[in-house]
Amino acid sequence: MFPATEFTKLAGVEYPIIGAPMVGACTTDLTVSISNAGGLGPLAAAAMAPEAIHKEITEVRKRTSKPFNVNLFVLGEVKADPQQVARALELLAPIREELGLAPGQPLEQYSQDNAAQFAAVLEERPAMASFTFGILTKAQVAAFKSRGILVMGTATTVAEARAWEAAGADMVCTQGAEAGAHRGTFLGDFEASLVGTMALVPQVVDAVRVPVIAAGGIMDGRGIAAALMLGAAGVQMGTAFMTCPEAGIPEVWREAVRGARDTDTRVSRIYSGRYARGIVNEFMRRLTPVAAEIAPYPIQNALTGPIRQAAAKAGRAEYLSLWAGQAASMSRGLSAAELFAALVRETQEALGRAASASPRTSARMV
Amino acid sequence: MFPATEFTKLAGVEYPIIGAPMVGACTTDLTVSISNAGGLGPLAAAAMAPEAIHKEITEVRKRTSKPFNVNLFVLGEVKADPQQVARALELLAPIREELGLAPGQPLEQYSQDNAAQFAAVLEERPAMASFTFGILTKAQVAAFKSRGILVMGTATTVAEARAWEAAGADMVCTQGAEAGAHRGTFLGDFEASLVGTMALVPQVVDAVRVPVIAAGGIMDGRGIAAALMLGAAGVQMGTAFMTCPEAGIPEVWREAVRGARDTDTRVSRIYSGRYARGIVNEFMRRLTPVAAEIAPYPIQNALTGPIRQAAAKAGRAEYLSLWAGQAASMSRGLSAAELFAALVRETQEALGRAASASPRTSARMV
Repeated sequence: MFPATEFTKLAGVEYPIIGAPMVGACTTDLTVSISNAGGLGPLAAAAMAPEAIHKEITEVRKRTSKPFNVNLFVLGEVKADPQQVARALELLAPIREELGLAPGQPLEQYSQDNAAQFAAVLEERPAMASFTFGILTKAQVAAFKSRGILVMGTATTVAEARAWEAAGADMVCTQGAEAGAHRGTFLGDFEASLVGTMALVPQVVDAVRVPVIAAGGIMDGRGIAAALMLGAAGVQMGTAFMTCPEAGIPEVWREAVRGARDTDTRVSRIYSGRYARGIVNEFMRRLTPVAAEIAPYPIQNALTGPIRQAAAKAGRAEYLSLWAGQAASMSRGLSAAELFAALVRETQEALGRAASASPRTSARMV
Repeated sequence: MFPATEFTKLAGVEYPIIGAPMVGACTTDLTVSISNAGGLGPLAAAAMAPEAIHKEITEVRKRTSKPFNVNLFVLGEVKADPQQVARALELLAPIREELGLAPGQPLEQYSQDNAAQFAAVLEERPAMASFTFGILTKAQVAAFKSRGILVMGTATTVAEARAWEAAGADMVCTQGAEAGAHRGTFLGDFEASLVGTMALVPQVVDAVRVPVIAAGGIMDGRGIAAALMLGAAGVQMGTAFMTCPEAGIPEVWREAVRGARDTDTRVSRIYSGRYARGIVNEFMRRLTPVAAEIAPYPIQNALTGPIRQAAAKAGRAEYLSLWAGQAASMSRGLSAAELFAALVRETQEALGRAASASPRTSARMV
């Protein structure tokens, strides 16, 4: 064991480290590796139909008895405007053609049935369920809690953290502006919600009484120790685990992440209709000038899906959504278990340096 | 004494805390208070003529024998385009009128003589000189160092930090995206340079051998401890000291900072022609749609100067540049000495908590 926090006690895990749920990157291997290492493994269920959720949870449970976290999006009603869909398809047509895909068509369904997903998770009773893109009602939170499922809401601002606390969430994950992939913002405008982790965490810690999990730009034990200093009860790390061999991303994406500089990412809504941080590539450059004409989330996301799949298959990073955080350059080629062990060791080293410098162990006090 | 760092040893100060140089907010009182408290007091000389620099340094030296830091901007040649100036004045005319100012006119000079400012600082030999907005040549850095003046460069990206190291700087101050006021960016584009402190600091620490000072979103001892965990040798804090009674900002600005939420600031170039973070107000809302038509820095800065002065005099926050960082809500009404003592105490408390949790003092080890 090391620093027991309100989070490790609540979740029953050894270390205050949560793997970020990453649609497309999370695999059974990754979930199980992180949970078995003593963290909270991520099961990214947002794109899964209810049957797939049941199946994946069953698979994970075959390989670990440790707690894990199932993540879902909170989506409002999806209404596709035929004209908007037609225009979005028109804008994507040249890229489809270049990748050898047939012309795109409007779809019958643009996202999973959110209520059916919730029902599947309620039935499975994982240790924790986390939510992003929106907020649950008090009744929904109560339903999860009554089945012994911890509820963690994602907040990008103090106001969102307060809203999750008011809804009854057991804890709040703060997503700093550094974080890779989709912004969880659900109140106020996108630009206002780009608050850096260093500024966001202590303000949220001061604003709510529930444990706060820090996310955004945390890549090693220095970052974990820093988050604990800010008052966080744990961290959630995505980009760091995304380059592990267990993560299910195409090799060209992994290479792009490992080669990314601090200045190589941008927040853009052109891939999915929702703001997300990824490495700048041809797709982003080409579509950004017409960003006002694309479809909203999840419609744009569904429409760009075949492009991203074909690009992955063809190894063409220029048409992939290369989600990554601002510290992607610090990612390592370690396996999830090796990375986890390194994170624990580095955190202890950083905290140990603090111990040797702190008044508790130093004769040179003020 | 507490955590001696590479910075405290180099600069000969007790604590690794630098007051951020804030034009308009730094006063002799603020400089002297921070230096006498054991930090590195800031002398914001960028807007001063050489004689004023000599005078202010003399004043500071009358009241402290401790080290302090003189900050200057690094400006290229300023060429005012008459048409651009005319358009910028036209856009500002309604606000001038509303504040009872006579119509604006082109100026003979839009900034101080940068070379003459450098000469004044070289002559005065403060403990440290810091620079932002651009980079010095190797010869310029060498000139300062040969007079026993430590040189600190401001970097908003890894590439900028490397450039300062290559130029011979003694240390680098990393300015995370959370930071209030002007961005120091001098390489690449503005948007790319908005890297959060949590992501920026460890990447810079890994990229350069000189000590790194963390800035951006640090408001209390938790933030200082977090920055030290990330590998920083010290911190630079601006917004935190800006609400101290010693700071020379108008009362309406101070009130705006203390009342600001995490989501209330934006990065905008409409006040000065250079990107800077401040609290959204009427001036920002009104000029942002025509941002492409304003004059570049320092011309726009000089042109908006009379408006900002008149607004300050009239107590009208809506036409002031309300510089503030993303954690402005954490600012306190303490005097600089009281705040400094609180920062030291809080940092020790945070590091002490780490000590009690770390393997060095805990029986519950991995």
